[in-house]
Amino acid sequence: MKVNKNVIALREALGAQVVTLPEEFGERRVEDWSGLPGATPLAIIRPRTTEEVAEALAICSKHRQGVVTQGGLTGLVGGANLLGGEVALSLERMNRIVEIDEVSATMTVEAGAPLQVVQDAASAAGFYFPLDLGARGSCTIGGNLATNAGGNRVIKYGMMRDQVLGVEAVLASGEVVGGLSKMIKNNSGYDLRHLLIGSEGTLAVITRVVLRLRPKPTATATAWCGLPDFDAVTTLLTHSQAGLAPGVSAFEVMWAGYHDTVIGNLKNLRAPLADSHPFYVLLESVGTDPVRHGEAFEEFLGGMLEEGVVSDAAIASSEAHARDFWAIRDAPGEYQRFIPNHAAYDVSFSIAQVGDAAAQCEARLRARWPEATVMTYGHLGDGNIHVVVDVPGMGKHEHDDIDRVIYDVTREFEGSISAEHGIGVKKRYFLSQCRREADIDAMRAIKQALDPQGLLNPGKVF
Amino acid sequence: MKVNKNVIALREALGAQVVTLPEEFGERRVEDWSGLPGATPLAIIRPRTTEEVAEALAICSKHRQGVVTQGGLTGLVGGANLLGGEVALSLERMNRIVEIDEVSATMTVEAGAPLQVVQDAASAAGFYFPLDLGARGSCTIGGNLATNAGGNRVIKYGMMRDQVLGVEAVLASGEVVGGLSKMIKNNSGYDLRHLLIGSEGTLAVITRVVLRLRPKPTATATAWCGLPDFDAVTTLLTHSQAGLAPGVSAFEVMWAGYHDTVIGNLKNLRAPLADSHPFYVLLESVGTDPVRHGEAFEEFLGGMLEEGVVSDAAIASSEAHARDFWAIRDAPGEYQRFIPNHAAYDVSFSIAQVGDAAAQCEARLRARWPEATVMTYGHLGDGNIHVVVDVPGMGKHEHDDIDRVIYDVTREFEGSISAEHGIGVKKRYFLSQCRREADIDAMRAIKQALDPQGLLNPGKVF
Repeated sequence: MKVNKNVIALREALGAQVVTLPEEFGERRVEDWSGLPGATPLAIIRPRTTEEVAEALAICSKHRQGVVTQGGLTGLVGGANLLGGEVALSLERMNRIVEIDEVSATMTVEAGAPLQVVQDAASAAGFYFPLDLGARGSCTIGGNLATNAGGNRVIKYGMMRDQVLGVEAVLASGEVVGGLSKMIKNNSGYDLRHLLIGSEGTLAVITRVVLRLRPKPTATATAWCGLPDFDAVTTLLTHSQAGLAPGVSAFEVMWAGYHDTVIGNLKNLRAPLADSHPFYVLLESVGTDPVRHGEAFEEFLGGMLEEGVVSDAAIASSEAHARDFWAIRDAPGEYQRFIPNHAAYDVSFSIAQVGDAAAQCEARLRARWPEATVMTYGHLGDGNIHVVVDVPGMGKHEHDDIDRVIYDVTREFEGSISAEHGIGVKKRYFLSQCRREADIDAMRAIKQALDPQGLLNPGKVF
Repeated sequence: MKVNKNVIALREALGAQVVTLPEEFGERRVEDWSGLPGATPLAIIRPRTTEEVAEALAICSKHRQGVVTQGGLTGLVGGANLLGGEVALSLERMNRIVEIDEVSATMTVEAGAPLQVVQDAASAAGFYFPLDLGARGSCTIGGNLATNAGGNRVIKYGMMRDQVLGVEAVLASGEVVGGLSKMIKNNSGYDLRHLLIGSEGTLAVITRVVLRLRPKPTATATAWCGLPDFDAVTTLLTHSQAGLAPGVSAFEVMWAGYHDTVIGNLKNLRAPLADSHPFYVLLESVGTDPVRHGEAFEEFLGGMLEEGVVSDAAIASSEAHARDFWAIRDAPGEYQRFIPNHAAYDVSFSIAQVGDAAAQCEARLRARWPEATVMTYGHLGDGNIHVVVDVPGMGKHEHDDIDRVIYDVTREFEGSISAEHGIGVKKRYFLSQCRREADIDAMRAIKQALDPQGLLNPGKVF
């Protein structure tokens, strides 16, 4: 097999240990979790240092060679898949925890460090790293930054961009920007960090970062609530944010359709409440006072039951009990077992409009497919819901039609077509549904300014 | 007086009510609080709507006319001053509160709304808008965004960028980008909002924004602490963040030199503690449990006294008492009365290095000027300190020398030359002290991409 001349140049400069060819990396997975097809890379580059990343990109720039940066390959929109003709740049060897600064409450890591490794290292040092999502074991800090990952604890701690103080990255030219700043406040010129975060590998390769650590919560209270209508759900949200002082750390809402479908299909799940309710909320609060925290939580929920905001509730009596609640919320990890062929959406709205927008989605889907399975659930405190749909005889055509229903509603309610998953390949044709033309022009101008040859993750986002 | 042809074009399009000439606006202040000189604008444009801003910028773009956007003119780095030949664009007429959405906990405002008006409107609606700084009565939301303002409550609530969900802005071309999104999560393409925030009016004119509101704290506890050394200060910080669950809302540190100078010079201030200490901390915690909050705060401080972290402390017995503590921290507003001719710095470091960096600054200043007045104080939870220096016979030459001392230390400790004030004109020659050349090149490329003619706030930041 003839080796591409750009790959030869990369291999000569960086060595065969860093630059491996298809016959060498063999059956290795090079696609993300989206199910979208991905091409085989001309080579996989696995640098060990920022300098090697810089050298690789300088060579790619010289030879006009496209590059797709890859982390844990757990994305859901094809953002790390190859379209054909690119090399892959995997950060898997840059996975070290460089330093924990206990006074500044920071952790400096290489971008290839898996999220769970970071969480565990924070915990071992007496701190807490709050970002958490189902893919924690595989996804990497660099991927979390490229997509500005969200997850379950955003309501209290924010998204990935809120966990980062310093970002070191390499531009397409091979030049290094940013650095390992531990400063919380830094208003000296444009904030490149925030521009790179969420840009899905199209503007630079993030190599090392300084993460912000938080005090470890020492008390957790968890409840499963049944509610009569969506107004009650938003009332519970407002009251819990005002009344649970140490902070609401999760507020996960599930429509009855989600609850009944997952409980009905997954034998290991049990309904926490005896009766059926139109809405369910998994409410979690963290604090640092083991004695008073649980009491205050119970008092608060008692008040909500008395006022009729909550119809019924179960408070977790143990960690295992809380895990049973979370298993219901985490059921999407088991979709393959009972709804393998579905269409899934990650949309956001203002909190006030989530109920109406979700109702519109369901009504329009049912008007066309009365037998549809529609499961709606998500992070209400962030205005972010996931909608999962299955219709009889689902094929590409039906999938496209469902796309249109959901994204039409999203546009009408001025929502976002991607709350936390990014655009990647999967949603790029819908980008104009939630961004102005002038926004997209500005994004293109910025892309052109920082990556004039269009080498970094070509064909993504736009 | 001959009227500039660009001004004639603006006045023809927008009318004499919107575009006023120097002989009409007369003695109006057009400079910020930096003390740096500012030129008189060719005209002042005072649009009433986003559309008028867009029209004004489209005309300026067509005629290659430079524009300086002005808010409350309370900046400290000359960022809103004119260099000569520009028109001023004042957002003073776009000062309305457009909407408060109580369910989504958002407030939509025009960019010219003063900070205090926003704080008061939030409070009247049962919410809290946490950004707070001394200039609250005059500074505007647009200016707060242009500089990514900080202030006293960053430790709990973050900076201005953390208070904003949607930003609508007008590019130099007159095109409108962004919008009034109320979404907390939105990962659909590059985050232009975060790029514009802190760009000091050089990339776009922010016209309207959606602010995030927080639950109103209903309990506040405040203490004034004396501490033996800087290690004790960082220990108190770490322990208070871990132990005061509802949140440390202020952690203001003052070196003895600051404390003694302001108490000695301002008759209305009284030392809260009988003895002298090397360091003082104003510690504030907010919560929602009026009964338990104060008790927990006292218990926590008792522990710190027992452990010797804190040498002595006074807990505010009333709001008036707490205001007496804050008056000592707010003394910089009175500098003109006793240290009119001083050099002031706004630098940040990792929290762990603040003590050493401050000690270095003072040592180097004293080596040269044994009689210098050096006052150091700031927001330790954010790694941000202010250093104020007066030396005998202070003139421009001495001021430049003091600049060099402070910014050399900042560079050596990898700090930032601007934690919260911005770069403006005052610090642009020092930008390379804390940003890589490749960073500045990238910033220039972005500026070129979004404002190719260099019309917005020319000569600032770079």
